[in-house]
Amino acid sequence: MLSRADGKLIHALKSRSGREKHRLFLAEGVRVVEDLLAAGVDLEFAVISTTLGDSARGAALRGALARATALREVDEPALAQVTDTDTPQGVLAVARIPARGLGDIELAADATLLVLDAVQDPGNLGTLVRSADAFGVTAVIALPGTTDFWAPKVIRSTAGAAFRRPLVNARDEEVWGWLAQHEVAVYGADADGDPVDAVELRGRVALVVGNEGAGLRAQTRTHVARLVSIPMHGRTESLNVGVAAGILLYEFSRRQLRG
Amino acid sequence: MLSRADGKLIHALKSRSGREKHRLFLAEGVRVVEDLLAAGVDLEFAVISTTLGDSARGAALRGALARATALREVDEPALAQVTDTDTPQGVLAVARIPARGLGDIELAADATLLVLDAVQDPGNLGTLVRSADAFGVTAVIALPGTTDFWAPKVIRSTAGAAFRRPLVNARDEEVWGWLAQHEVAVYGADADGDPVDAVELRGRVALVVGNEGAGLRAQTRTHVARLVSIPMHGRTESLNVGVAAGILLYEFSRRQLRG
Repeated sequence: MLSRADGKLIHALKSRSGREKHRLFLAEGVRVVEDLLAAGVDLEFAVISTTLGDSARGAALRGALARATALREVDEPALAQVTDTDTPQGVLAVARIPARGLGDIELAADATLLVLDAVQDPGNLGTLVRSADAFGVTAVIALPGTTDFWAPKVIRSTAGAAFRRPLVNARDEEVWGWLAQHEVAVYGADADGDPVDAVELRGRVALVVGNEGAGLRAQTRTHVARLVSIPMHGRTESLNVGVAAGILLYEFSRRQLRG
Repeated sequence: MLSRADGKLIHALKSRSGREKHRLFLAEGVRVVEDLLAAGVDLEFAVISTTLGDSARGAALRGALARATALREVDEPALAQVTDTDTPQGVLAVARIPARGLGDIELAADATLLVLDAVQDPGNLGTLVRSADAFGVTAVIALPGTTDFWAPKVIRSTAGAAFRRPLVNARDEEVWGWLAQHEVAVYGADADGDPVDAVELRGRVALVVGNEGAGLRAQTRTHVARLVSIPMHGRTESLNVGVAAGILLYEFSRRQLRG
């Protein structure tokens, strides 16, 4: 059975304010919870359905969860009542948001950072974190106005990447000061920027990606050393922000491939 | 007022079978309907809210719609009742699905095609069409198992691209036969493929992108001449299918930039 307090906590974690108050987030579904365990994220407790153990994969997850945290077992309708998705796949974990600030980021000499300037769509945010992980970005930093990293839809879209890379929220001046102090060259994504493949990237670099509709904010532009764009054939068309950032991160990652 | 028949038709067009039966689709929102008109897609009728004309942009759209098709004007609650989104933005158009088969595609000597092999998420499908448009792809061809191009969520995600490029549904054997007949070299996206930047692309090429979870189907692989991947630094991580295809299309488009 799920206690009234557990149900109330899970409900509270569906809003950003609730997540920020409790410093906890929800992870739903077999794959997401497997990724959570693999990354060693601290769990508060997990809710599983009585049918989770029916498959071999589910039984393995149930065993791993039992070793890692407190388990609450409920029937499927009771689980569906507290989860966000239509098909909760038998498991919901309540996990601790990794406490990470700029000071926790370890910067190699050729580190790449991704900075998000008011990205608003949860699916886009999750995709950006996933691409950042795939291309070896050291950390993802969200400026104010960016949607919450720890929203269920974002977590699902990251495909586990949210648990593998530092995700940091920080105020504007804090971020720009920290980047300058660590000699990070700041590039902004903009359709009118220089073609990214013609830009020589050296040392530590940060890519700043703006809002889906409005692009980079005016105050952000004052902190960007150079604007970069995707070289396009013919007319410049809009790309989805996740795709555009993915291509730029791909190009940023190639400097390491080139040696 | 919206007649009972109009309401029933709009409702029918929310399902794929209804769209296929009537050969019509729904376009919702100011931006989408502007794109629809700009592309010259045939309209059946449009439903607008009485408040659409309150903004200059809305008033301009209302005028353009009145010249293009029959208008039904209803109050906002009545419009919200028939639309798919929470905030329908004052306009819904019922438009004709452009009738396009493989035979309608005009292939230049260096054409690039995008072939979709059972892509299932509507947001991913829309993003793929949008990227295809941005990178100058001649047409997008969907194999069986791919979600419907004309679903409202797909249309929204294409950002107008659905109206600018031929989108074709065709059976497997039909597609492979047509590609062979037109001497199109077929490349499949796969994490184990050759790094795309090391592959020399000449003449007409097609990129085949598979399902989010399962990748290319076994029967599709038999028709692919070569598998291509995204060169990654270190471990190969999964990318969102829309991002992965965007990067590959970007690389495909560069052969034209290179001259």
